Amino acid sequence: RYGLAEKEDQIGVVTGLAYTSVGGELLSIEALRLPGRGRMKTTGKLGDVMKESIEAAASYVRSISPQIGVKPPRFDRWDIHVHVPEAATPKDGPSAGLAMVTSIVSVLTQIPVRKDIAMTGEVTLRGNALAIGGLKEKLLAALRGGVKTVLIPKDNEKDLPEIPDNVKEGLEIIPVSHVSEVLKYALTRAPEAIEWDEEAEEEAAAARAALRHPDGGSGATAH
Amino acid sequence: RYGLAEKEDQIGVVTGLAYTSVGGELLSIEALRLPGRGRMKTTGKLGDVMKESIEAAASYVRSISPQIGVKPPRFDRWDIHVHVPEAATPKDGPSAGLAMVTSIVSVLTQIPVRKDIAMTGEVTLRGNALAIGGLKEKLLAALRGGVKTVLIPKDNEKDLPEIPDNVKEGLEIIPVSHVSEVLKYALTRAPEAIEWDEEAEEEAAAARAALRHPDGGSGATAH
Amino acid sequence: RYGLAEKEDQIGVVTGLAYTSVGGELLSIEALRLPGRGRMKTTGKLGDVMKESIEAAASYVRSISPQIGVKPPRFDRWDIHVHVPEAATPKDGPSAGLAMVTSIVSVLTQIPVRKDIAMTGEVTLRGNALAIGGLKEKLLAALRGGVKTVLIPKDNEKDLPEIPDNVKEGLEIIPVSHVSEVLKYALTRAPEAIEWDEEAEEEAAAARAALRHPDGGSGATAH
Amino acid sequence: RYGLAEKEDQIGVVTGLAYTSVGGELLSIEALRLPGRGRMKTTGKLGDVMKESIEAAASYVRSISPQIGVKPPRFDRWDIHVHVPEAATPKDGPSAGLAMVTSIVSVLTQIPVRKDIAMTGEVTLRGNALAIGGLKEKLLAALRGGVKTVLIPKDNEKDLPEIPDNVKEGLEIIPVSHVSEVLKYALTRAPEAIEWDEEAEEEAAAARAALRHPDGGSGATAH
Amino acid sequence: RYGLAEKEDQIGVVTGLAYTSVGGELLSIEALRLPGRGRMKTTGKLGDVMKESIEAAASYVRSISPQIGVKPPRFDRWDIHVHVPEAATPKDGPSAGLAMVTSIVSVLTQIPVRKDIAMTGEVTLRGNALAIGGLKEKLLAALRGGVKTVLIPKDNEKDLPEIPDNVKEGLEIIPVSHVSEVLKYALTRAPEAIEWDEEAEEEAAAARAALRHPDGGSGATAH
Amino acid sequence: RYGLAEKEDQIGVVTGLAYTSVGGELLSIEALRLPGRGRMKTTGKLGDVMKESIEAAASYVRSISPQIGVKPPRFDRWDIHVHVPEAATPKDGPSAGLAMVTSIVSVLTQIPVRKDIAMTGEVTLRGNALAIGGLKEKLLAALRGGVKTVLIPKDNEKDLPEIPDNVKEGLEIIPVSHVSEVLKYALTRAPEAIEWDEEAEEEAAAARAALRHPDGGSGATAH
Ligand SMILES: [Ca+2]
Ligand SMILES: [Ca+2]
Ligand SMILES: [Ca+2]
Ligand SMILES: [Ca+2]
Ligand SMILES: [Ca+2]
Ligand SMILES: [Ca+2]
Ligand SMILES: [Ca+2]
Ligand SMILES: [Ca+2]
Ligand SMILES: [Ca+2]
Ligand SMILES: [Ca+2]
Ligand SMILES: [Ca+2]
Ligand SMILES: [Ca+2]
Repeated sequence: RYGLAEKEDQIGVVTGLAYTSVGGELLSIEALRLPGRGRMKTTGKLGDVMKESIEAAASYVRSISPQIGVKPPRFDRWDIHVHVPEAATPKDGPSAGLAMVTSIVSVLTQIPVRKDIAMTGEVTLRGNALAIGGLKEKLLAALRGGVKTVLIPKDNEKDLPEIPDNVKEGLEIIPVSHVSEVLKYALTRAPEAIEWDEEAEEEAAAARAALRHPDGGSGATAH
Repeated sequence: RYGLAEKEDQIGVVTGLAYTSVGGELLSIEALRLPGRGRMKTTGKLGDVMKESIEAAASYVRSISPQIGVKPPRFDRWDIHVHVPEAATPKDGPSAGLAMVTSIVSVLTQIPVRKDIAMTGEVTLRGNALAIGGLKEKLLAALRGGVKTVLIPKDNEKDLPEIPDNVKEGLEIIPVSHVSEVLKYALTRAPEAIEWDEEAEEEAAAARAALRHPDGGSGATAH
Repeated sequence: RYGLAEKEDQIGVVTGLAYTSVGGELLSIEALRLPGRGRMKTTGKLGDVMKESIEAAASYVRSISPQIGVKPPRFDRWDIHVHVPEAATPKDGPSAGLAMVTSIVSVLTQIPVRKDIAMTGEVTLRGNALAIGGLKEKLLAALRGGVKTVLIPKDNEKDLPEIPDNVKEGLEIIPVSHVSEVLKYALTRAPEAIEWDEEAEEEAAAARAALRHPDGGSGATAH
Repeated sequence: RYGLAEKEDQIGVVTGLAYTSVGGELLSIEALRLPGRGRMKTTGKLGDVMKESIEAAASYVRSISPQIGVKPPRFDRWDIHVHVPEAATPKDGPSAGLAMVTSIVSVLTQIPVRKDIAMTGEVTLRGNALAIGGLKEKLLAALRGGVKTVLIPKDNEKDLPEIPDNVKEGLEIIPVSHVSEVLKYALTRAPEAIEWDEEAEEEAAAARAALRHPDGGSGATAH
Repeated sequence: RYGLAEKEDQIGVVTGLAYTSVGGELLSIEALRLPGRGRMKTTGKLGDVMKESIEAAASYVRSISPQIGVKPPRFDRWDIHVHVPEAATPKDGPSAGLAMVTSIVSVLTQIPVRKDIAMTGEVTLRGNALAIGGLKEKLLAALRGGVKTVLIPKDNEKDLPEIPDNVKEGLEIIPVSHVSEVLKYALTRAPEAIEWDEEAEEEAAAARAALRHPDGGSGATAH
Repeated sequence: RYGLAEKEDQIGVVTGLAYTSVGGELLSIEALRLPGRGRMKTTGKLGDVMKESIEAAASYVRSISPQIGVKPPRFDRWDIHVHVPEAATPKDGPSAGLAMVTSIVSVLTQIPVRKDIAMTGEVTLRGNALAIGGLKEKLLAALRGGVKTVLIPKDNEKDLPEIPDNVKEGLEIIPVSHVSEVLKYALTRAPEAIEWDEEAEEEAAAARAALRHPDGGSGATAH
């Protein structure tokens, strides 16, 4: 089944697109959210650039945490594990960045990812989509694998004229320039934002702490 | 005795199947659960991919923790050591993933593993079984070593026609697509699931903590 | 869009200038401030010298913390992530030091960086600007990318005679000798300094701690 | 004196047997138990496989801790240092596993090791003895060094016919299949087992902790 | 300006002397003292020997801490960052040891370093000055850079006859055998020593801690 | 002065003997004891074997801690830094083991080391002296450097016949088999042993802790 689109909408499972010397390929990206203390684990024979793209994705997600309904302190009580199967095959490059963001947002919010969508694109710390290479081979792999919709970076629109017509007809190709668009297309429903005022929360936390460890003076007068 | 099926059902000991340039081989995988603080140790001259397959197996097991009757916070008070003997022989590859999961589940639940079963298959973070290489050589080694039953990934069913008839007659070969099937065949009894509501548990823990360190205000009014 | 000046004033996003064997190039430097505990993360395939230049930039910023309105203990409750996109391209060298300082100051103060400015220059632990190489190629890249103003180290003024006239006409080139000048030009407004007396603050913190955990003697007399 | 059997029964000092290109050799293995916090240190120019064999030995010993009279939590308040002298000579391989277990058990229980015994054999996480190479050379070295008794893995019995008669006459060669036999032969007295019920101990520890930090409610009603 | 003597007396900035295949060179060494927890950071493409010389310098300074007016526990609440600019140029060797000590003492005491002085010399853990190489080239660089006074190890006095007369006339060359002399020449004023009795201080700290967490017995009798 | 015997008895400074391709050499070994938390730092371009010999020396010293008058818990409140000057010269090998032990004992006890003594010899975890190489060259260097007495391993007595007569006449050469003899010769006075019963001390510490955090029950009855 590997190399085919997913059979059902799943939490944390995203279809990326890889490009190697022998052509394009579907890349199943899996994330898990575990009770923990803010650690990130990555496995699947990933090169340094792909590992860094996961770190950038994770930082971006933290930075938009309230927008996806997650209170920032929550991060310190979870670990996240990102794995890219076919663990014997080396993988590298930044082009799975958008897929990494989507996978992490999905496990954090527990909102499933649409099964018939694939995506490719580097992501910046601001959530912008940057151009990738091998668009043609990636789209061919998506078509072959039964994918319906492919999200590509807007900066790669310039490569669309070179894509064979049957590929463009067989796939819905959607250029995106930011993660916000990616999440709109890829998640089965939109996360609900929460209010979060960092300064206010910090002060409240400090106040609670003071209440729990009251000073001797006031405690004494109460006796 | 090494290279032969186990003589009795044991906790944490699983027979995997390796495939090297000189043929197939039985691989005895051992896990221990020790009092500790959530660390994983691996030994036996394991390559990076096999080490990562153990990390993926461990994360998967954590993610199904309540289903095997283990409360998630329990993990922080145990260390797990996975060792693959014949420690002078280098071992690598992801194909022992299913065996790693089985070994870890067995030590956590203290349920023995059936002695006459062997298994091969990569595992994903969702517990899916992925295809492996060298099926023929692995099955020959299993037969030679006195194994009765071999679990293989469903994705490897396509390779069965090439397997010699005497091997297929001498072994019960069971294709599986998910860890849940593996555990059903390999453990001597099924683990009992427990209820676990992460959010509820967290709130309860917070409440207990608050009770232990009561705030000055309410403490004062009680005097 | 990569390789062009930014479209709007953004917090933590600074345009640096790189110089490679194939010419000059714009370098978009991004920083994020996240809830954390004083850690610095860097990504984007950065070489050791560039990573060290970020460490030097961060230490310099800490050393001037009250001047930019940030209380020093605040650093222990934030992580900072600095990323340089086009993550597949190796980057190295100390010449982005001034840009790193600017990016970090911008995320800490939440003051945006002017979108049409670029800068190049090594930075010392005292905030001094040191000379860089490849000035001509960098200025050409700035002009090509639509940058209006370029800050260069005063020590590079000696290279200006070799710069083509059209470049000098198309860009406002401003030699600077210290970070204080850089921040004046690059930030959309000046940070407000706060008073900070390290010794006094430490004593106050100690006093607060003593109040919370009063000694048995005084507590006893109060009963 | 190095290369000869020990002159007296000592705590933590075990004679192993090494096999190199120039023949067999006695290997003096030393362990120390120090006040600490559960760390393991290894020195003596040991290769990775020998270091892993020490880790496996240590985990095995922890797993049988109550059987040798040591309460598991005790491990967190000791460090163990294993050193193999002639520190300029590189050493590697898993064949000192049984000796490592014996050395660690000896320092933990403070029971001396018999001075005229030597041993060779890989150890598994279950304490099983696995076959080693170079048996003939190792036995020759033992004879030369004045050793009286040598413990070898039962799996190496098949090699005994090739051993010269004078060696077999000069040494008592004892095949063993498990650590339990090794300890019986090598220690000057048997360790006394203690009762240890992990779950019960954990609950008791939790109860003690609760007593020390009583909740505010019950404290208040007592006033 | 790099390669010239400093323009004003600064805290933590010391002029060292380097010797490379192309001649001598001035080396500006910068240290910063930051709120922290006893960590040492070093940047500037420093080789292992130069990094070790900074560690030795730091340990020496800790060992004389009361003599420079710094209470030893203070070290746990500061980080020190030592940077050697022109961060793209590799630097190595132990000969900047005296300069490292001076720089660290200067930031700890906040006493400026005289701007027209340069120094070279390895330092031991006892603060002794050891001989260095390349004296002639280093002195030439000092003269060229506008330095007035150069401190050299007494062990290098034997090399003075080979130094050209104009160099010896243009510079005040002062042989030193210990850090105490270096500090006398290099700092703009002498640090004031404090009394520090380690044992007494430890007992006092323990007493304060006991007072804060009084035992239940004595607390009870006071009611 | 480097390469000569010390001029006065100093705490923590020991003269070792090195043997390189160009002959023997004096090695000044320096240790410092600093307020800290049980860490060991080593500098001076030391190879892995020499670093391990320092670790072995340190563990040995911890194991005899009460015999030299140091309470074991004291180790957790000190750091020890061992440095071997002429920091640009690589050093390796285990033969400075006895010197390392002596240096560490000297800083811990604050008892000076006799200035006119040198020593060579590997040390085991039990404090035994093992044979070293290059005895002749080392003794020549000792004579040249003004050393009066040299401690050598008893196992090297066999090499004495080959040593030139003038060397044997110019030096007092003392064969030793254990650290206890080394300390007797090298320290200016003998350390005073203290009583230390690990189990008793642990129980006392636990009792003190319980007193400080009394349980709620007894506290309540006292009101
Ligand atoms: Ca594939
Ligand atoms: Ca990709
Ligand atoms: Ca085998
Ligand atoms: Ca396998
Ligand atoms: Ca580019
Ligand atoms: Ca640059
Ligand atoms: Ca030997
Ligand atoms: Ca061996
Ligand atoms: Ca220069
Ligand atoms: Ca220098
Ligand atoms: Ca020398
Ligand atoms: Ca030596």
